[in-house]
Order: sequence, then C-alpha cells, then structure tokens
Amino acid sequence: MAHPVSPLAPKSYPDLPAIAGVRFATAEAGIKYKGRTDVLLMAFDEGTTAAGVLTRSKCSSAAVDWCKANLPGGAARGLVVNSGNANAFTGTKGKKSVELTADYAAKALGCKPSEVFLASTGVIGEPLDASKFAGVLDTMATRMGDAPWMDPAKAIMTTDTFPKLSGAVLDIDGVEVRINGIAKGSGMIAPDMATMLSFVVTDMPVAAPVLQALLAKHVQTSFNAITVDSDTSTSDTLLAFATGKANVEPIASLDDPRAEVFGEALRDVLFDLAIQVVRDGEGATKQVSIHVEGATSDASAFRIAKAIADSPLVKTAIAGEDANWGRVVMAVGKAGEPADRDKLAIRFGDLLVARDGERAPIYDEAATSSYMKGEDLELTVSLGLGDGRATVYTCDLTHGYITINGDYRS
Amino acid sequence: MAHPVSPLAPKSYPDLPAIAGVRFATAEAGIKYKGRTDVLLMAFDEGTTAAGVLTRSKCSSAAVDWCKANLPGGAARGLVVNSGNANAFTGTKGKKSVELTADYAAKALGCKPSEVFLASTGVIGEPLDASKFAGVLDTMATRMGDAPWMDPAKAIMTTDTFPKLSGAVLDIDGVEVRINGIAKGSGMIAPDMATMLSFVVTDMPVAAPVLQALLAKHVQTSFNAITVDSDTSTSDTLLAFATGKANVEPIASLDDPRAEVFGEALRDVLFDLAIQVVRDGEGATKQVSIHVEGATSDASAFRIAKAIADSPLVKTAIAGEDANWGRVVMAVGKAGEPADRDKLAIRFGDLLVARDGERAPIYDEAATSSYMKGEDLELTVSLGLGDGRATVYTCDLTHGYITINGDYRS
Repeated sequence: MAHPVSPLAPKSYPDLPAIAGVRFATAEAGIKYKGRTDVLLMAFDEGTTAAGVLTRSKCSSAAVDWCKANLPGGAARGLVVNSGNANAFTGTKGKKSVELTADYAAKALGCKPSEVFLASTGVIGEPLDASKFAGVLDTMATRMGDAPWMDPAKAIMTTDTFPKLSGAVLDIDGVEVRINGIAKGSGMIAPDMATMLSFVVTDMPVAAPVLQALLAKHVQTSFNAITVDSDTSTSDTLLAFATGKANVEPIASLDDPRAEVFGEALRDVLFDLAIQVVRDGEGATKQVSIHVEGATSDASAFRIAKAIADSPLVKTAIAGEDANWGRVVMAVGKAGEPADRDKLAIRFGDLLVARDGERAPIYDEAATSSYMKGEDLELTVSLGLGDGRATVYTCDLTHGYITINGDYRS
Repeated sequence: MAHPVSPLAPKSYPDLPAIAGVRFATAEAGIKYKGRTDVLLMAFDEGTTAAGVLTRSKCSSAAVDWCKANLPGGAARGLVVNSGNANAFTGTKGKKSVELTADYAAKALGCKPSEVFLASTGVIGEPLDASKFAGVLDTMATRMGDAPWMDPAKAIMTTDTFPKLSGAVLDIDGVEVRINGIAKGSGMIAPDMATMLSFVVTDMPVAAPVLQALLAKHVQTSFNAITVDSDTSTSDTLLAFATGKANVEPIASLDDPRAEVFGEALRDVLFDLAIQVVRDGEGATKQVSIHVEGATSDASAFRIAKAIADSPLVKTAIAGEDANWGRVVMAVGKAGEPADRDKLAIRFGDLLVARDGERAPIYDEAATSSYMKGEDLELTVSLGLGDGRATVYTCDLTHGYITINGDYRS
C-alpha cells in the first residue's frame, strides 16, 4: 500500500479557510489501514442543502444506494466517509451496515438518519462491520472543529499518494463566499457521473435544485472528463453541501444571474480536484490533455477523446516518451465515430505531426521527441468535419500501475 | 523487438499438409527487420474463390481498402503480405504503394491486379516504399513451393513471439479436404471484424458467397471473441481462399448440408488461431476465458464479457494471481448492460466465489488463490436474468506489456 508519492503531486497544498456551518473530525476506526485515519464525520448546521452525482454502475455500492435515496430530500446534517472498505457487493449485509452507520451518526449529531449521507471506498466485496463506528462516531461528535481541511482530505485516501484539496473564494453581493472541496482517486477512475469520492462544501445559500443543476452541469467538464484506467467505480460519489451561512440572499433559481457566477467558481473547484485525481492516477508520470476538435458534435468529440485517453497503446507510448501518433490514429479509428482518415490532423503541443491523412511534411522527430519528455502534455486531434469539441484528461500507463494493481488486496 | 517467447507458446507446431492449388515463397525485403523474412507471396490456381472480413476502423489501412474493393469479385490469384510497416495513415502515398505492389505481383504471377490481395502489418504512419518489392516478387515467383507452412507463418510476424498455424483435415463425400490457416498478433488486438492478419486456404471448392457467409459467421466466436488490449487495429484482415482442387462437387449454396460440416472445420481452424493470438498477447502469462451466462441476450452477454476482458484492473489482478472478484463486479457494473447486483454469481474455474450479490458462504480463499496460479483460467459470471451467453478470450496485463509498448517504434 506504501507507494512512492506521484511525481505529479502538487508542490504545496492550499490552506483552506473555515466554512461557517460545517464542522468535522477524523479518526482511526481500524477498518483496514493501521496507523492512519480512515473515517471522516462532518456535521452541517440546520438548513444545509445537498446535491449529488453518483455512479451509474449497475453494481453500485450500498452507500451509493443510500445517498440516491436521500438526495431528493435536498437536506443534509451529516456525512460519514470511510476508507479501506467500499461496502460494495455486500448484499443485505451491506444494506444493514449502511443503515446502522446512519443511525449511529444521526444519534451522535442529533438529526434524522435520512439527513446523513454516506460514502465508502476501498476493497469491494468485503462486508463492512458497522459496529466499528459505534463508539467512534459518538466520540468524534464531541471534538469537531472547522479546520484544518487537510484532515478530511487525508482520511478518505486509499491508494492516493497525496491528499486532494481545492477551494475558491468569491464575492457575491459584496459578501465573501467560500467553496471548499476534497477528493480521492486514484484507480478505477473513469467516472460515469462522478469520481470515486469528492465532497464540496460552501457557505453560499443555494436551493437544493439549483445546487443539483449546477453540479450536474459542471461535472461534465471536470470529473466526467477524466480517466485513469477506463474502469468505472461502484462507489463514484460527488456530494455538494451548501450551509447557507454567508449573509446574502439565497440563490433560489437558475435564472438568478449569481447562479452562473457561483457555478463557475464551483466548476473551478471541481476541475482542480479532477485534475489532481488524474495526476495521482496509479503509476502516473505524465498528465495528458486530449483535445478533439472539428467533430460532428461535442458528444462525438468526447467519445473520440475518451477512446484515445483509454487506449493502452497510446498510454504506454506516452509513458515511453514516444510520439507514436500512429496509435492516436488507431484510437480515432476504433472509436466508431464519424472520422475521415484523409482530413485528420494531429498535434503534440504546438507541433504538427500529421495532417491530411499522413505524416506532416514539416514533422520534426527531434522536436517532437523532446516535447514528449515533458510532464504535462497536450495532444490535439482535428477532424475537419464540424464544430464539435471536447477535452479529456488522463495520465500515462506505466509499470507502476501494474505493480500497484497486481497486488492490491493482499 | 527481441522479446522472450511467451510462456503460453505451444510446445510443438503442426506440420500442415500441402494444399493443391496454392504455392508460396517468403523473402527478406528489408522493410524494417534485418535477418528475417518479411514478405510472403502466395499464388492461387485459376478458379480460386476468396472471402474476407476486414477491420471496421474508420482509419483503415491502404491494403484494407484495396481488399475491400476486390472482394466483391470473389476471385483470387495472388496474396502479398509484408510485416514491419502497416502502410496505414499514409495518404495518397499509401494508395499508390498498394497499386504498385499489386501491379508487381500481377506481373510476376500473370494475373490481373484486381485478383491480388494485399495485407501489411507493422508501424502506422510510415510510408511503405513499394519499390522494395519490385525485383523481390519476380524472384519469389520463380521459386514457389507448397511447403512448409511454417515459412509464411513466420514471415508475417511482428511482435509475435511464436508463429501461429492451424489446420483441419475432413472427409467430404469420401474425399480428404484440407484447411490450413496462419495468423499473427500480438498487440492492438480487439478485432472488430477480424484479427490483425490471418489467412486460411482450403482445397474445398466453395462458391465465394458461401465462403463469405461461413467466414462472417464463424469469425464471431473466434477472432471477434478475443481481446488483448481493447485496441482495434487499422489493419485487421482475415482472408480465406478456396482453390477448389479437391475432387468433390462444389458447395454452391448454404443450403448444401456440407456447408455446415465444412463451416465447423473452418471454425475450428479460426478458433485455434484466435486462441494462439491471445496466448501470444504482448506480455501475456495467463490465458483467460470469460464466460457470461444468464444475460438478457447473447449480445448483452458479449458486451459484459468484453467489459470484463478489457478491464485493466481485472487483467492486472489476474497477472498478480489475485482472485479479486470485486473487480469483476466493477466491470459488470460499468458495462451498462442489464444486470441485477443481487442476482450475480461469479466462479473462478469451478469455485463459487460470489452469489446473490455478495461473497459466497462457501468461498475458500486458499483454494481460489491456488486456482489463480494456473496458466489457463476460466471465469464465469451468471447474471440470472435470461438465456443470453457469450465467451470472450483474453490474457493478463503485465509489466511485459508496458515494456513492449513503451518502446515499440524506436
């Protein structure tokens, strides 16, 4: 489990400010890991709204099912997250474990179980013993604070090699409003609706339906635009909570012009967290942005970008610092989307390597090879068919991925 | 390029018999490799019928386009295959190169260019210099023989670590009829219509439309049911040639009961070759058969089996001899096909590991771990929804794959 820290880890971490209306504590419940925190309890003040985007996996975890059932209520008072065990594919035991955990948390926080949200991450198929939370949650509830946010970010990690935090501070009606977010990766990452786990809290008063709409919109270009290994998790959970403690008029409708301002800031936080997940992709040594333009539609561009980003041959070539654009051609070809081989152009960074269906006359092997040695790579495919465009973010595929995943359970 | 021979290589190779009506020669044209054959010329007697199944890639190679244009003619007199260069994504240069090669071959064999079939395999995006074939094909035409079939099997290899041959001999109307086949892998293998390259020759007289129908049918459970790395090639080509030299009445229609007999033998050859491609998958140390049953349809079962077979997390777990059935659950969940988590059962070999949506009460970690040490693994997922079933064949994902593909072009 002790893998070297990703070479793409941030050089420093943001010191996120406290957000009025939310307090938290972390603890060692000994679920799987020893000597580190593995459970997070968050408490939200009354009036906190909630929104969420969860995995579309047909084999979703018990905690995902629980959140899906509670989200229509739109209200949150608590959040319990554990790492080390995903409580996925655990049958009726898993369902009971979730109910028990929500009961413990509700008692500790003095709220209803339906106001408690849950997320679990780790091994699939092992029953999660909820009794381990019994005393733990009670104790945690007595020592909650509003800082530092590094603690919750650390408590939710599994194979992550660094904690992921991001925040935004914006001015709404002359009032400082805050958004803090945390996330964890770092394998089984091809979010269909969200990444494995991410939680965002703001003091902005936002009605639950508005928060839900903004979250659903901005997840598309953030968490839903990343892929580490094309494998979609059973536990993907992105939850947003708005405590409403900032002293401004609530955003009650998407027609409120402040919804867009707030949404953009929310998007920045989601995007930053999503990129951090990619940069901590198991075994990653390079981050790659795959841009597809000139497709017949944005959706078509996205599927082509995803096919390139998920191709093991493209990803291993990038790991080997090989400007193997032939494999990019292959991935475009296999995507099944409209493409005309003889109109295709490919760029690595600003370097044109192919155009009009063949190697570019100005192709410069030395310059391209030198570009591939970089840590942040941009790959652009121009299809020349229409205005559709999309970007997908991924990492390379290295020996590190094989080492980590050939021996995860044991 | 010199990778160790796959541990899954066959212990011996079949000594395929000569087939009347076909002769061949191989040569070193120096296209990319040094000190090994890289071009194959086959000549078919007049009256030979042809059928083929080619890649559905939107970026198909020039040779694929050439074959697609000639197949409706249904007649073949020649086949030229080169390794080391795929002549894919080479624009008008590639088209001219293909025309020139067919001209050379037609002159050497005394036939029309439209009766010559072509296939190229190797690097994508490098123009193929057809002038290299000029003298070579002429000379080859003067020294053609009907054995040994090991020679053509070797001439078409790229990253393959062993040659792939298979044959069937069957009795039709009291006459011995022969089918010989060769194939090559071993990366960029997720055939959409065929594997990278495979060629099958029979002396059975079969009308071209019948041969085409039989090929299209049996490719579904052979080459189209394998995947090494989920990456579909630009060059996938499966061609079948029937010289008609066996002294029996031709099969002129699918209603002829002999079509089924012949088709089954053809299927055996295709299946054997397809499995050999999997067993030479880049870096493979284990062959895995993924069976899905109880799906709502065969097509749905196939898509679920493919999702499992293409999952990097499942494949790395198998490489690590880890019975990580949680990842199988994940892959079922991400396939997007009808599945009911709480009806799912999973077997490794005969060992039940999960049922009714959770770990099986009789799950035996020691026995399962011991099973995973084997070289040939069977993984069965029962969905409990209907009668749909399918099997997909794959291999594990190891450090070997990364090593081979991180440094292929250079």
